[in-house]
Amino acid sequence: MTDLLWPGDARAGDLFTDASVVEAMVRVESAWLAARGHKSDLKAGFDVRALAAETEGGGNPVIPFLKLLRAANPSVATTLHTGLTSQDVLDTALVLQSRETCAFLAKALGRQVVALAQLAERHRGTRMAARTLTQHAIPTTFGLKAAGWLQGVLDARDALNGAADLPIQIGGAAGSLAAPTALAGSPAAALDLVSATAAVLGLPARPPWHTARAPFTRVADAFVTCTDAWGKIANDVLLGSRPEVGELSEAPAEGRGGSSAMPNKQNPVLSILIRRAALAAPPLAATMHTAAANAIDERPDGSWHVEWATLRTLARRTAVAADQTAELLEGLRVDAARMAATLTAARPGIDAERRKMGDEGQYLGASDELIDAALARAQGKPC
Amino acid sequence: MTDLLWPGDARAGDLFTDASVVEAMVRVESAWLAARGHKSDLKAGFDVRALAAETEGGGNPVIPFLKLLRAANPSVATTLHTGLTSQDVLDTALVLQSRETCAFLAKALGRQVVALAQLAERHRGTRMAARTLTQHAIPTTFGLKAAGWLQGVLDARDALNGAADLPIQIGGAAGSLAAPTALAGSPAAALDLVSATAAVLGLPARPPWHTARAPFTRVADAFVTCTDAWGKIANDVLLGSRPEVGELSEAPAEGRGGSSAMPNKQNPVLSILIRRAALAAPPLAATMHTAAANAIDERPDGSWHVEWATLRTLARRTAVAADQTAELLEGLRVDAARMAATLTAARPGIDAERRKMGDEGQYLGASDELIDAALARAQGKPC
Amino acid sequence: MTDLLWPGDARAGDLFTDASVVEAMVRVESAWLAARGHKSDLKAGFDVRALAAETEGGGNPVIPFLKLLRAANPSVATTLHTGLTSQDVLDTALVLQSRETCAFLAKALGRQVVALAQLAERHRGTRMAARTLTQHAIPTTFGLKAAGWLQGVLDARDALNGAADLPIQIGGAAGSLAAPTALAGSPAAALDLVSATAAVLGLPARPPWHTARAPFTRVADAFVTCTDAWGKIANDVLLGSRPEVGELSEAPAEGRGGSSAMPNKQNPVLSILIRRAALAAPPLAATMHTAAANAIDERPDGSWHVEWATLRTLARRTAVAADQTAELLEGLRVDAARMAATLTAARPGIDAERRKMGDEGQYLGASDELIDAALARAQGKPC
Amino acid sequence: MTDLLWPGDARAGDLFTDASVVEAMVRVESAWLAARGHKSDLKAGFDVRALAAETEGGGNPVIPFLKLLRAANPSVATTLHTGLTSQDVLDTALVLQSRETCAFLAKALGRQVVALAQLAERHRGTRMAARTLTQHAIPTTFGLKAAGWLQGVLDARDALNGAADLPIQIGGAAGSLAAPTALAGSPAAALDLVSATAAVLGLPARPPWHTARAPFTRVADAFVTCTDAWGKIANDVLLGSRPEVGELSEAPAEGRGGSSAMPNKQNPVLSILIRRAALAAPPLAATMHTAAANAIDERPDGSWHVEWATLRTLARRTAVAADQTAELLEGLRVDAARMAATLTAARPGIDAERRKMGDEGQYLGASDELIDAALARAQGKPC
Repeated sequence: MTDLLWPGDARAGDLFTDASVVEAMVRVESAWLAARGHKSDLKAGFDVRALAAETEGGGNPVIPFLKLLRAANPSVATTLHTGLTSQDVLDTALVLQSRETCAFLAKALGRQVVALAQLAERHRGTRMAARTLTQHAIPTTFGLKAAGWLQGVLDARDALNGAADLPIQIGGAAGSLAAPTALAGSPAAALDLVSATAAVLGLPARPPWHTARAPFTRVADAFVTCTDAWGKIANDVLLGSRPEVGELSEAPAEGRGGSSAMPNKQNPVLSILIRRAALAAPPLAATMHTAAANAIDERPDGSWHVEWATLRTLARRTAVAADQTAELLEGLRVDAARMAATLTAARPGIDAERRKMGDEGQYLGASDELIDAALARAQGKPC
Repeated sequence: MTDLLWPGDARAGDLFTDASVVEAMVRVESAWLAARGHKSDLKAGFDVRALAAETEGGGNPVIPFLKLLRAANPSVATTLHTGLTSQDVLDTALVLQSRETCAFLAKALGRQVVALAQLAERHRGTRMAARTLTQHAIPTTFGLKAAGWLQGVLDARDALNGAADLPIQIGGAAGSLAAPTALAGSPAAALDLVSATAAVLGLPARPPWHTARAPFTRVADAFVTCTDAWGKIANDVLLGSRPEVGELSEAPAEGRGGSSAMPNKQNPVLSILIRRAALAAPPLAATMHTAAANAIDERPDGSWHVEWATLRTLARRTAVAADQTAELLEGLRVDAARMAATLTAARPGIDAERRKMGDEGQYLGASDELIDAALARAQGKPC
Repeated sequence: MTDLLWPGDARAGDLFTDASVVEAMVRVESAWLAARGHKSDLKAGFDVRALAAETEGGGNPVIPFLKLLRAANPSVATTLHTGLTSQDVLDTALVLQSRETCAFLAKALGRQVVALAQLAERHRGTRMAARTLTQHAIPTTFGLKAAGWLQGVLDARDALNGAADLPIQIGGAAGSLAAPTALAGSPAAALDLVSATAAVLGLPARPPWHTARAPFTRVADAFVTCTDAWGKIANDVLLGSRPEVGELSEAPAEGRGGSSAMPNKQNPVLSILIRRAALAAPPLAATMHTAAANAIDERPDGSWHVEWATLRTLARRTAVAADQTAELLEGLRVDAARMAATLTAARPGIDAERRKMGDEGQYLGASDELIDAALARAQGKPC
Repeated sequence: MTDLLWPGDARAGDLFTDASVVEAMVRVESAWLAARGHKSDLKAGFDVRALAAETEGGGNPVIPFLKLLRAANPSVATTLHTGLTSQDVLDTALVLQSRETCAFLAKALGRQVVALAQLAERHRGTRMAARTLTQHAIPTTFGLKAAGWLQGVLDARDALNGAADLPIQIGGAAGSLAAPTALAGSPAAALDLVSATAAVLGLPARPPWHTARAPFTRVADAFVTCTDAWGKIANDVLLGSRPEVGELSEAPAEGRGGSSAMPNKQNPVLSILIRRAALAAPPLAATMHTAAANAIDERPDGSWHVEWATLRTLARRTAVAADQTAELLEGLRVDAARMAATLTAARPGIDAERRKMGDEGQYLGASDELIDAALARAQGKPC
């Protein structure tokens, strides 16, 4: 999957592609068979494009998917899917893809944390002008700025940690486990079947949540918490890359940042594309919430359907930005001399508060201690 | 292009696909050549997927596109694109695709208007219970309800008419027409070149709008005004399709509306999918506005980039819903007997206002005149 | 009304305050009486705060409002409101307030157009560096930048012109004019009554639009089109106000821009607050669309109710920003020397395209002609 | 504070009112004095309305607030606020108000959990038709439906529990604790001062988060997770209240649910107003994220400012809906006979899956066990 209009999209790899979602649906059906003691090595490999074209009739992709799956696996054709409803299969498939996205993000966040910790440590003594409301405020260090970025990234990591354990969805037609109970012989046996299926997939069990959508809104909120943190970093790099500021720059890369008309330019492309994602993400998460808020009955009439592509788009946008941010931070160029020059030029105004406070030092406050605090937090439980 | 997670996506055909956008970029470059008197039958046909994978370096698809275009057209390789900036090509290509989307929507709106006019006319005398705040209010007719739907659709048509004339974007590197002026020999000649290019493409001319994005936000708002109107219709059909109400139903169609687990069910799939689009669209248009509001400099650092895929998604979602709504309305089943039965069952409560007002008739007010007004408006200028 | 957490809120004056909305409701009831030939100089002046506390019972403010209005006007107590529904009164009151907001905005836009035209004219020759994707691109003039701002403001003026003629809403309980018809004696007489009421209020007539909400979404979209245009201006001023750039600054004003801790600072407060509004507005307009898209029946069960406060907030935020932008532009300081210095420092890189194009002049393209085009457009029909 | 256009607003009491925010700012300044060993019983009581009118000059309410606070407390006039920046005071005041909102919500959620647990328990045997995609699906019980609502409410409670511990914000002018360090004599002493202030206020300490806004976006997301859960409940009650369904109704209340024109009607007002809040909340939380994503420098130029009123509005809307939902659930009327009648009427279609599965019982699956699971979860740690 590539997206001409979302440069960098390929960084998200196979996450949530049509093919990946179909494969995840196969895994769900297979786990359900396995938990029931059936032969579960399902043959798949059918034409996803043709499948996609058939989804409208039933209003979701599961019905045509099952037709193909049964045709490809005649020996379990009548056994397959029994007890499940379309939403069980699709929700759980999206859970699996969300979990893969979280794992992808965790890796990228890990790289970011390492890069930021190094920047914070290395630039403890790199003095620069702090800016508030666009104006020079007081002196600070780039190390403290990097520690502030790190805190935002660690907040995002926490949010992701709190959202990544999305549960399985198996409820049958109306969330009562009626068909699974009929199949298994008793409610207890049905619940065991759900647990066993969850175990095969490595997912937590949970009562059906067909119309209680917090697992999906939570992960969507976590994605946005990530793009928020990266947006802040990108904004600072974009400002720092302006020729009038000149304190920060992206690592040069073959074929990156050129202009179609102006050979002189080197554009901060990664930061631009990260900022783009940070602008796109909040309304997508809002759509997930609006969908949740419009739930009705035992399966809603449109608000379930709007989630699928929305979650996919949000997940891929976030994954692309995750990787771009890691690369940005790993290669970030810091011009300490330029920072020092700006600070000097900002005098004496930038020292006004220092003088008012009667401080005769560098007026860096607890910068070191705050950097240490960020570094210590970074050592905590990985995402 | 098909989208497994947006059932019905194929209805939008080639609108805004990667291939269509590339083709539109070719048309822009070709028109620019033609206006300058050069050979303009450019060869294209290159691998869009490979192209999409190359867009990140420059942050937009135009740079790799030009490389391929030049390779495929060696005789004009150095002539091509001269005077233009990437944004000129991409914006104008998106304008062309937006215009095609508007034409697509105009056709679907036309079908809707015809279907709604017939429903309003045919059901002038089909009495039913009006419902306000979920409760039976007073008697009305289904004809008047259809006329109300029609008014919403005509509002959407007006919005689209007011937004469909998106202008060409040619401004050169910074919106001053500097390179086109150098190329053409004078400012007047540069402006003539822009006009000539606009004429080739059938677009209105306009001074550069690289950072004044109302043409795009206006068309996005018009798309949402469409999905709003269709959402209202879908909501009413969904309610009317509930077995407890039973007044409306979608036309049966081969392979549509079935359930993977419950053979008894016939789901109102079109209405569900239309409602889905109505939930998805407003935040996408909000993103277009947020992008416009974050414009800065002569080309912004991320807010331009977020527009492309957002506009594409919004346009395709709207096109799919347009076609679905036309089909829904053309086939809608109205159960006049059930409406009459509900009305009877709602008595005497539903007659309370009539009695209070001392009316001894059917208490249908100006229903006929309001239907006539909607029908007359429908005869106005087509979209 | 003042809002501690929205500095500058008082600039919006009485627009959409509780008291203004109540007053507008009185005007609607009064116009309805007048159109029917009744004594229509209603006494009002009741305690709005107490009224606000009573709105929950009926789910809208009209029911307790009528109780107070009847008590204050015993001679028309039983005549008042007959034929109307709550939504008629509240919708039309919000229409009146929206129209006042549009008039307020039109004035502010007029001031902005004048100020921008002066800036564009005065700075035709003020050369500066154009910036794209944060980097210096080619030379331009501040006059052309101001002309670009002006184009955005004129787009906003057009949008507002297209939305300001919101129609009256009179439909009776279910949009059929049933009660008005009973009251007036015939459908034609009922329609005449609506027209007469519209004439009293100076509003266009239109069939009921209880559930076809384009008049409100259109005006909301126009408000956002305004804040988009102002956001772009504010972003450029904020960047220009940075000490490293130093090309633009807000006019100093007594007591403005100070810092609680840093006496050295002069913050670009107006631009900050304008940018704030530009960030707030798009999601508010999205809520208006989501409300429209969730309409159902002859009066919806929540989506009508969410519009009122949303429209009020959006209108006031827009009005505040309108006035702030007019003041910002009227006082804007342009540092031509600093612009020239930046341009010089950007050489030779910033001349790369000029050299490539073989231009030996200032490379300002059609700047003058584009400024002229913006000035000419500004002379068009006022908002 | 009352809001004419948000019926029920008074339920939110003093949360986030201008007066409450000012009082919270006083508490912050007082705690800062106390931690430093100064007299800290500050006199306040000044005119909030006048204060609100003075906020524009500095772009935030803290500067005029300090002027009044100093005038009212001359003995500590020069001691007050030393070391702090405006953002410290305002952010921490908003944290205090957010915490009060969380406490308010926790109480309401507690009432909801009790009411829902009772409904789930009491209606274990109350059979009804499950509905999916608007159509009758299979039999279920109202107890299981209530258990599903309860799961959503418990998800919301979890989200709130994870967000309610917002930390103090003290960072000085640029988040380095420079002034506090100068004041306290050393970085360690400054950090102690922050901790002591946090202890006075009962807040967790944390390094400055002026531009890492996850604490605010997390609580905003939790608010929306609440309104999502309540929206689902309201939607089901609204459908159940329709006369054609008639299975659920709100408790009658003096003066509630009447119509200005139709004496026959009893509108489900609480559910309507809850649904309204569920539609309003997601875009407000999106604005908080967009603000976070636009952070720049050590204090941003507009994206900080947009948070204040947005968070206030979201918090109050959520609080109102919390209380309304508690009342709704405590008084909900369940018509078991009507549910049974609908189920009977839905036969034999609704039994199709049961027959297909060869089940000869009531086909209620693991309803009892799923109710038990929800009840057990409800016994967990209170919000």
